[in-house]
Amino acid sequence: MVKRLDQKQTDFEESFAAFLSTKREVSEDVDHTVRAIIADIRERGDAGLIEYTQRFDRADITGRLRVTREEIAQAYESADPQVIDALRFARDRIASHHARQKPQDDRYTDAAGVELGSRWTAVESVGLYVPGGTASYPSSVLMNAVPAVVAGVERIAMVVPAPDGVLNPLVLVAADIAGVSEIYRIGGAQAVAALAYGTETILPVAKIVGPGNAFVAAAKRQVFGTVGIDMIAGPSEVLVVADKENNPDWIAADLLAQAEHDASAQSILITDDAPFAEAVADAVDRQLKLLPRGEIAAKSWADFGALILVDSIAAAIPLINRIAAEHLELAVADPDALLPRIRNAGAIFLGAYTPEVIGDYVGGSNHVLPTARSARFSSGLSVLDFVKRTSILKLGPDQLRALAPAAIALATAEGLDAHGRSVSIRLNS
Amino acid sequence: MVKRLDQKQTDFEESFAAFLSTKREVSEDVDHTVRAIIADIRERGDAGLIEYTQRFDRADITGRLRVTREEIAQAYESADPQVIDALRFARDRIASHHARQKPQDDRYTDAAGVELGSRWTAVESVGLYVPGGTASYPSSVLMNAVPAVVAGVERIAMVVPAPDGVLNPLVLVAADIAGVSEIYRIGGAQAVAALAYGTETILPVAKIVGPGNAFVAAAKRQVFGTVGIDMIAGPSEVLVVADKENNPDWIAADLLAQAEHDASAQSILITDDAPFAEAVADAVDRQLKLLPRGEIAAKSWADFGALILVDSIAAAIPLINRIAAEHLELAVADPDALLPRIRNAGAIFLGAYTPEVIGDYVGGSNHVLPTARSARFSSGLSVLDFVKRTSILKLGPDQLRALAPAAIALATAEGLDAHGRSVSIRLNS
Repeated sequence: MVKRLDQKQTDFEESFAAFLSTKREVSEDVDHTVRAIIADIRERGDAGLIEYTQRFDRADITGRLRVTREEIAQAYESADPQVIDALRFARDRIASHHARQKPQDDRYTDAAGVELGSRWTAVESVGLYVPGGTASYPSSVLMNAVPAVVAGVERIAMVVPAPDGVLNPLVLVAADIAGVSEIYRIGGAQAVAALAYGTETILPVAKIVGPGNAFVAAAKRQVFGTVGIDMIAGPSEVLVVADKENNPDWIAADLLAQAEHDASAQSILITDDAPFAEAVADAVDRQLKLLPRGEIAAKSWADFGALILVDSIAAAIPLINRIAAEHLELAVADPDALLPRIRNAGAIFLGAYTPEVIGDYVGGSNHVLPTARSARFSSGLSVLDFVKRTSILKLGPDQLRALAPAAIALATAEGLDAHGRSVSIRLNS
Repeated sequence: MVKRLDQKQTDFEESFAAFLSTKREVSEDVDHTVRAIIADIRERGDAGLIEYTQRFDRADITGRLRVTREEIAQAYESADPQVIDALRFARDRIASHHARQKPQDDRYTDAAGVELGSRWTAVESVGLYVPGGTASYPSSVLMNAVPAVVAGVERIAMVVPAPDGVLNPLVLVAADIAGVSEIYRIGGAQAVAALAYGTETILPVAKIVGPGNAFVAAAKRQVFGTVGIDMIAGPSEVLVVADKENNPDWIAADLLAQAEHDASAQSILITDDAPFAEAVADAVDRQLKLLPRGEIAAKSWADFGALILVDSIAAAIPLINRIAAEHLELAVADPDALLPRIRNAGAIFLGAYTPEVIGDYVGGSNHVLPTARSARFSSGLSVLDFVKRTSILKLGPDQLRALAPAAIALATAEGLDAHGRSVSIRLNS
């Protein structure tokens, strides 16, 4: 029986706070193992990669770390043409939406005659981690690689483990369609180490992005500083806010689309109508029986799902902001009216005809979004993750004279005499 | 004797690569201690803060965790009016430059009739860590707090340890001028824990920024996820590129302004003129004797400083990009001509009348910048660090029908049937 919360209950605040702080992940402590693997790859390079791949993926990749053009051509051959078209369709939509995210350079002269500016440049090279096995999603390849291409990153090196030597051909096709430059059949902490430090075959990159298991996440944390990393993604979640005018079957389908991801996923419904909530709960139970991944979805729904009954849709706003969901569906009559008051959400899907799944694949927005309430302080993946800003400052003698007294006063107050001297020495000329 | 590298030497590439990979910091392993402190603050709240402050700062703060309005008024009284004016001058320049960084919302309808958008909102509350003792810099308070205020953050809670009960009055004044909402006299891992999880007196924040020692850095890493954090700053560095038309004394003063920060700081000169390089080296030695912090600066210069002789200023470009300095001074005839080819730098200071120190205090740009080559993949602190972006997607029935086939094809290819159902269920109505 799924968890039910009711804003009318006197203990609602307590129950809601407890629900909010529920951990959905057990963090595995693999730091020590990962540290040893990284050190080993730094020392032994390709030889280390080959050995770990033999051990963990049961595959001999001697002399064939890099996936060849022929293999990519074969992947196209073996793929369903309709799916290839769908990947191209998705790529085009993602690229055109993300093109609008490119930041503009700024250069101006202020009232004091000081020239200031901000200049954006692309990260030179990016490593993209793609998980192997069943979690090897071609859509995630597009979502991670296309913004990098749009940003102007010249080199995108992808790593993807091939358990028992098997690669998902659609992942290769998606990489090719997205514009990935190089693909290596490696995974785990060893692949992250290779991207960060380089080996005989793999040049190091400046930043590593993409999801992975506990070993990959720990490795990314450990190489952070040497390279940049993206956020560490947790299990996925959806919050659906729906009034009673909705079809309960549609809403149930959306909750289950999230729940089927994995047993730690979370699906929450907020509604102002108790019978509607129960109708959705019934529809979930019915639809669960139809799903190939029904067992996973049932566990997610039972462990982390929730139906939250509110006094009115307006009364849901503070709860929405506290949940700070990765995905927020607003299936209400006038979703745009709620928008200005919603502050924390990774992505918002407006109206009954915008199921979150559209955003997973073909909406154009990115599906790499902040999980586990981190939308309170972070954003989904975008072009901004693949560029960086340099400040520009330019003074002439007059501007230096105008700014010098304040700079020298502050340097002196901070006890940094050489700072003050670096300004004052230029005034006596 | 400072390190000298010469691009003409046959072993230059080897020497330069070795120089680049020199570690300037020994990372202390304090993770275990920090983990215990955080757990203790989560359990005991204010009582824990009081106990750790007694132990580490030798001060009893029972009943007076928060700095009062009266104390701030007293700080103004005790401060040099000229310095207060300088802080206000700096605040205004920082605020007006950072106001240009505010990102614009975007909402549009594409050719398929799909509505897309990006919406920016401020982080609700931010914690600002300020170190105690001699590294308690009022300018850093401005640089961290002003962008948050410009971004629209409602609540800025500052923590600053008061060793032996002593606070730097200028830090309190700077906080007040910047717009900080609350100040607590605590520091270390315990202060970071209090900001992340809250105590009886301190409400939790959504993001923590500001520099600190190894304990603070480790605490920020450990609470990351529960709250957002900024980059972990390493020791500071400057790269000065100067031709022989410069006054060697000015360039020496700039190198020393960096070196006086701490013994791990780094100052590098790149020039195309050997006699000029030696003249700068001589000027450094002469000026070192005049500096109150000469001992620190001398150690930094001897251990990590370098003079790099290049064949031409143009030949310096690839080196500049590999060094990816936090601060880059271009003291050459036409610095703007070099700009388009420079890719990796935290901030660039153009021409002989723009010493880097201006950027530390009153230029208007931020002095919190990426260190240790991280300008290859990250940017200085800006308004963007205090806002987050939410994606918006809105389809009607026609748009859903248009996008559905590709979405369903991809969901099916990924084995996510509930994803496909969430779209297809809406098509049969």
